[in-house]
Amino acid sequence: MTPKLDFIGFINTPYEHIEECPHNIQLNGPLCEINLYPPYHSGLQGLKEGQHIMILYWLENTDRSAISQEKCGGKGRTGTFSLRSPNRPNPIGVAVLKIEKMELGKIIVKGLDCLNQTSLLDIKPAIYKEVP
Amino acid sequence: MTPKLDFIGFINTPYEHIEECPHNIQLNGPLCEINLYPPYHSGLQGLKEGQHIMILYWLENTDRSAISQEKCGGKGRTGTFSLRSPNRPNPIGVAVLKIEKMELGKIIVKGLDCLNQTSLLDIKPAIYKEVP
Repeated sequence: MTPKLDFIGFINTPYEHIEECPHNIQLNGPLCEINLYPPYHSGLQGLKEGQHIMILYWLENTDRSAISQEKCGGKGRTGTFSLRSPNRPNPIGVAVLKIEKMELGKIIVKGLDCLNQTSLLDIKPAIYKEVP
Repeated sequence: MTPKLDFIGFINTPYEHIEECPHNIQLNGPLCEINLYPPYHSGLQGLKEGQHIMILYWLENTDRSAISQEKCGGKGRTGTFSLRSPNRPNPIGVAVLKIEKMELGKIIVKGLDCLNQTSLLDIKPAIYKEVP
């Protein structure tokens, strides 16, 4: 009962080292490219520029044993599930962002918070309380 | 490079059969319990009633080969990533809902859309455009 994930593509961001990554998404951050592997290109049909999407990605080199941890800025210790930290039992990053542009097998957004070459897990249309 | 997930708990909903599940979360739906396994209980520290959380869960018995599929209600075929369907390469469900109540190792929310006993992957505080 340990399900496996399949990487469906990869994300290009300006961040090559973990110290450069912002702590969270930045709504007016730099342009980032979400690239799907060719077998998944047709899965983007129906998405449109201007629409908000939820992006799921796999965070590498994290501490999966972190059940509690220090908050940013030395504000004390707290439970992992009250933080967006990459150090968590299942290190899946989630960002809700607007589609700036679409190309073949590719979506451009602004302000992702992950390293360059981060592996992509899923894209969903944002709904309800996930959009402004 | 096929990362594995660890189940951190399970979700109790009123739905025992897939036909009973709503197509998406329902903001005023029935009460549902998110139960963490004991080693993860302390990870909830810092979360508060009334706060919105993002819940990630693993959808079983889905079609992971679905790159495009029929829309609900016979509205034609579209790309999987333009839908919230459970049939997708990585069947991770995501819901953003308000914490109605907290107990030891347990969070109560309203209106999850998954089967009873669905496996829990992660809880994160909702941020930015994910909250109203």
